[in-house]
Order: sequence, then structure tokens, then C-alpha cells
Amino acid sequence: MRAPIVTLLTDFGTKDSYVASMKGVILTINPRCRLVDISHEVSAHDVEEGAYILLQAFSSFPEGTIHLGVVDPEVGGPRKPILVVTEHYFFVGPDNGLFAFVLRREKPEKVIHLTNTKYFLPRVSGTFHGRDIFAPVAGYLSRGVLPKAFGKPTDRWETLGFQGPLLNGDRLMGRIVYIDRFGNLVSNISEAELRDFVGDRPFWVTVKGQRIEGLKRGYWEAKKKGALALIGSGGFLEDAIREGSAAKNFKAKKGDRLTIKIPPMKGKPN
Amino acid sequence: MRAPIVTLLTDFGTKDSYVASMKGVILTINPRCRLVDISHEVSAHDVEEGAYILLQAFSSFPEGTIHLGVVDPEVGGPRKPILVVTEHYFFVGPDNGLFAFVLRREKPEKVIHLTNTKYFLPRVSGTFHGRDIFAPVAGYLSRGVLPKAFGKPTDRWETLGFQGPLLNGDRLMGRIVYIDRFGNLVSNISEAELRDFVGDRPFWVTVKGQRIEGLKRGYWEAKKKGALALIGSGGFLEDAIREGSAAKNFKAKKGDRLTIKIPPMKGKPN
Amino acid sequence: MRAPIVTLLTDFGTKDSYVASMKGVILTINPRCRLVDISHEVSAHDVEEGAYILLQAFSSFPEGTIHLGVVDPEVGGPRKPILVVTEHYFFVGPDNGLFAFVLRREKPEKVIHLTNTKYFLPRVSGTFHGRDIFAPVAGYLSRGVLPKAFGKPTDRWETLGFQGPLLNGDRLMGRIVYIDRFGNLVSNISEAELRDFVGDRPFWVTVKGQRIEGLKRGYWEAKKKGALALIGSGGFLEDAIREGSAAKNFKAKKGDRLTIKIPPMKGKPN
Repeated sequence: MRAPIVTLLTDFGTKDSYVASMKGVILTINPRCRLVDISHEVSAHDVEEGAYILLQAFSSFPEGTIHLGVVDPEVGGPRKPILVVTEHYFFVGPDNGLFAFVLRREKPEKVIHLTNTKYFLPRVSGTFHGRDIFAPVAGYLSRGVLPKAFGKPTDRWETLGFQGPLLNGDRLMGRIVYIDRFGNLVSNISEAELRDFVGDRPFWVTVKGQRIEGLKRGYWEAKKKGALALIGSGGFLEDAIREGSAAKNFKAKKGDRLTIKIPPMKGKPN
Repeated sequence: MRAPIVTLLTDFGTKDSYVASMKGVILTINPRCRLVDISHEVSAHDVEEGAYILLQAFSSFPEGTIHLGVVDPEVGGPRKPILVVTEHYFFVGPDNGLFAFVLRREKPEKVIHLTNTKYFLPRVSGTFHGRDIFAPVAGYLSRGVLPKAFGKPTDRWETLGFQGPLLNGDRLMGRIVYIDRFGNLVSNISEAELRDFVGDRPFWVTVKGQRIEGLKRGYWEAKKKGALALIGSGGFLEDAIREGSAAKNFKAKKGDRLTIKIPPMKGKPN
Repeated sequence: MRAPIVTLLTDFGTKDSYVASMKGVILTINPRCRLVDISHEVSAHDVEEGAYILLQAFSSFPEGTIHLGVVDPEVGGPRKPILVVTEHYFFVGPDNGLFAFVLRREKPEKVIHLTNTKYFLPRVSGTFHGRDIFAPVAGYLSRGVLPKAFGKPTDRWETLGFQGPLLNGDRLMGRIVYIDRFGNLVSNISEAELRDFVGDRPFWVTVKGQRIEGLKRGYWEAKKKGALALIGSGGFLEDAIREGSAAKNFKAKKGDRLTIKIPPMKGKPN
């Protein structure tokens, strides 16, 4: 029988003991678990950023993977601890929107409000449900405990307002939702949304007053240190600098606007 | 048979090849080992910080786990390489106090001075005992080699002066021993020590001139960006800012004083 | 049968989803794989630095280990995706010199140009061959697919000009090729090259105008905060400061010159 996989996504960083404690708890409950880190460098308390990183990674894992996510600024407060069962995966964590982007792709079959303390650590702290609730639930789930054993189903869960691009006259207006290690500017405009808008016409992408013409297939199609736009590996429109940082060069940051425009049909673009 | 678990705690960081080399050595000796990182971001040469992080994490792991710790500024010098056997765990690393805090919780049953070169790499460098001595010892130990095979028992080992809180007139004086990623200020005052001092009277916690009244059960009980004190997940009194950084707001650093005081019984606190 | 080991070396960092996506792909293809990170903190696009880190770590792993390396600034461009088979290991990644230092130690038995799309993900992006080509090839290789199934052999691959030390009159001139977390300055002068030059004469090592006399066996032989030279754990001459940072103290950086000189035989060194 294949060893179950549990992934971990948190904003705990890797210096402190927190992630290790969660892993120890899981391995104590199920020593056969395979543990894979997604990221622990989510900006502190930034649920939306965590949701975005999880969205990019979750579907590369085998069916049945348990995705454990803990970006949980309201830990111990009224927000519910939940288990989400979708067609292909399980998600365990706080009900604060951390799974909201994923659930636009994976239809939830069942959402369980985690209330059965039998599957928690004996003493639950007020500040570390990652260790005391979510890790043990993931551990027991990986051992085959049925979702319904953890609590009652609920039909309400937190969604984040994932704002897609907007039509504004002759422009499609998006925004930068993520900036990666290389300074690539990831937008909220999906490949399909871009295609719907531009058809097969040429177009301009503008960020912070910098205009880029059309799409490249890869960085190598631009000249070194040259700007380009492309569909990134996550399926969204990105602005990039070949072997450089678009974030730095354009002084761009999360939330900044990114505009698609069809250039005038006649004469040279100006 | 369950795969043995070896955890790793170092000040090597994760950019350099050092941690990977240790893992390669362990897996060469015992391919069945489960390797789990505790932290590699201990501040360079900071044995006390390493000891604190290990203290927070070690007991979440299953019995029989081998905790390998290498914060070793005196590597190659007179400090002894040791294996500590306690009731529940094994600890392998330099005898420089790295296990001192743990050994206030876990009584050592046996401390072995690692001298049997049969269980070292064939060539031991002067600068990387993590790879050349500690990793192979952990590997062989995980394969079932008996502790006594690695060397002779010793009854002396390094302790760090873990300074608990001090009574000073009508105050309990502690200090900040760790600051985590969120800027939470972890003190050396345990929950029991706090309770012993305050009983069920109200009290004030003061750090850097900032006074906080009483304990909260979790961050959510404070208002956003509000200061609070609570018993952290490691069992020690902490100062925190909800969704903010107490370290930054209070300009606090490791070693700073933290004071508990019972407010005057009559009239308003002032 | 022993679980196959796949190591990962990238410049992706650990915040973004990229490394996790690669791991998910590998585990989907071969759930039995053991995954071990070498480093994901290679400076962005710095192939030479990646090659150096891999050189330091690769040989600590068991025979048969698959080393997956993705520092790939030309991703999607004309550089070839390759699989290198050596006497002890497999290497999978872009043909851009990332394996060049390793291949000065491990003679390649076979270099395969990866062209068989049957072993790629169904849709290959223009920017993320780590996930779409290299991870699946590593996964299938770990399941026992023969190297020749992935493409045709090639007898040309990228080498980096690894510049060894140069003789210049009465001096041996090296340079700093790597600076580790502790600020140790790693040179391109191997122990054998140093010995060939100095024989058993005393010698001086000079970096940035700072002269150090002779070699120490370990940091502990210097006084605290004192400078020393030694043969590092990777077999190269290093400059260091005991419990301090030579990089910081000497204001040294990668590429800086390091000189070996035999002092005048008569009289005091001056």
C-alpha cells in the first residue's frame, strides 16, 4: 500500500520549531506518512498569499494527497477548523479563505467542521492549532479515519474575493497578485481570459507605464535584461525581465495594475 | 518494522551543501532512515539559541527518534562528541550545551563519548564533524548499533546556565530568551513559575516600558495590532502583538528584561 | 528493494510553489522516491554557483542517486535538456554547465539528449522545464526506465571554464569561488595543488591585503575572532575567522584574488 502524502503550507518560516513540531505530531500518529513542504515562507498572516501559493502547487500531487495549510492569524478565535474533501484531494486547516482559490478549481464534495477532540492533541493551546488540531487530524486522516468522524458537515465556508480582470472601455484591467523569487509579476489574467479579450489581434501589456508588445513563449525569446510578457507556468499572464527582476526594474508591487490594450489598427503603434 | 527517524538541527543554513552532505551520509549508511529538519537557521555559532529551538520541538517526535544537533563553533577542538540516551530519545552532537535545555526535561540515562572511529567516516575533517562523525553515528545508531559500541560512558557533560526568573522585592524578573518569526517575545518564565508568583491575583507584564494587563488565551482576544501577553505553545510567558510584531513595536531584543508585578490592590491601577 | 533517492538543486527559493510542484510530479510518477533537497537558494540564474554547491554535496549520497539540478536561465531556449550517467550517479537537468564541475570528478559514461516526450508532462510550458521535463524524467528513471529510452546519446556538453590556480613568479594565484553562510572564503586551490606548490615550506596566504601564516587544522586552533587558513571540508583552501565572518572582516567577495607565497627563508617574516 502506498504511503500517504501530507503536504505542509504555513507562514511559520523555517527557523522556529513550529513546522518541526507539526511533523513530529504527524509522524507520531502515522509513521508511514510522506511529508512534503509546499512553503513555510508565506508572509506572516497573509492568507491570500498562502492561498495563491497553494493554488499553484496542489494539483501536481498524487490523488489522495492531504494538503495541510496553516496561515491562521485568527488562531483560537471564532474561525472554524475544517477538513475539505474534493474529488482528488483533502485540505485541512482554518476556514479563513486559505483554500478559497483552490476551491474555484476543485469542487468541494464535503466540508467538515473539525470538532471531535478525540482526534486533537490532549491539550489544545490557544496559539498553535497547527500542532494541536490540524497536524493530528491530518495524521489520523492519513491512517484512514473517515472524514465524517472528525465532525459535522457544514455548507458554509470562507471565500476570498478573487478579483478577476475587468473590462474598462477598450482595455482589460488586471492586477499583480504575486511576485516570485525572480521578480516575475504574476497577474490575475488567465490565459483564457487574455485570449477571449484579444482574439488573434496584437496587443500591449502595460505595467507601471512600461509597455510590452505581445507574448513570448519563454524568457529566451527576449534579449538579455529585456522585458517580456508570457503565460507563466501557473497559467496566468506574467511580466518578466530575462535574467533580471521585473519587480525591481518596474518598481512594481503586489496590487499594482496591469493593462491589456489593442493598439490602433492603422499606422505604427505609438 | 517502522523506519527510524533522524531529525537535524544546525546553524548551517540551507544554501550551502552542508546539510545535504549530512543527509547523504546518513542515507548511505541507512537508506531506511526518515529525515526531518528541525531547523538549519539557528544563528551562526549560537549554541543557546539552538538549544532553545530543540527544546521546543524534540518532544513532538515519536519515541526512539534520533535528534542530531550540530551547532558546533569549537568543531575539531577539545569539546567532546557525544551520544545522549534518555528515556524516550537519542541525541547526537557536540558536548557544548546544545542539549542542555532538553536535559532539564529528559533525564539522561547514558552519555557516551564518541570515540570509536569505526563508526566515523574514514577521513575526519577538522571543520565538519556533522558530516564526518555525527551523521555516520546517527546512521549506525538508526541501524541498531548499541550505544555502548560508540565509546565509553561519561558522567560529565556541558550544561548551559539556563537562568530562570528571579524574585526581586515585589516583582518577578524574567528575560526574553527567544524571538520568533512573528516577533513574539518568548520569556524564560514558565506557566508554573508565573502561577506560583501571581496566584489568582491580577498582574502586569512589562517589557521595555510597555505594560500589559493580565493574560489572554489567544491572539484573537486582543484587538488588531493590540499588545497582549499569553502562555505560548512552548509553555512560557510571551508578549505579542496581534497580527503584528512585538519585537518591532517594542524595539525588544533577546536578553531584554520582562517584569511581572502585582498592581496595587486598592484604587485604579496607575 | 531500496527506495530510489532523488536530490533537488535549484535557484527557485523555498517561498514559491516551484519546488513543491516538482516534488509532486516526481511522487505522482514514483511514490516510492526519497526526495532530498540539496539547495534551493542558489543565487538566481547563477549556474556556476549551482555547479559548485552540487560538487560539494553529490558524492555523499549513495550510489545510484539521481541528482536533479535546475538552474536554468535559458529555459525553453536552445540549450539541451540532458541526462548524464556516470559510474556512480545520474544527473538530470539543462546542459548549461550546471554539471560541469561534477564531471571533472565523475567521468560521464553516457550523456542523453532528452527528447522522448513520452516521459515529459503532457503539456510542456516555456518557462518551467523543472516541472514539465526534468522532474518527470527523474521520476521515470527512478522507476527503472533505461537511460537510452529518454533520447539519443550525445558526445558534446557544456563545460564551464573552471579556472584553477595560476603560477605567477613566486606566487600561486587563486581566487575565491564561494562564500558560505559563515563568511568562510572558499578558494579554487585544492589541497593537492597547495601541497605541490609549497612542499613542506612555510607559506603565507593573502586575501585583500590580509596575510595569514600557514594552515590550521581547525577553527579552534585560532584565537576567537582570529583569522586562519585551512583546508575546508570540500578539499579546498579556505580563509576563515574563528566564530566570525572572513567575508565581512576582509570585505571579500566572490572572484577576489587569494595568493600563496613562500616567505623569505632568512630572517623574520615582515
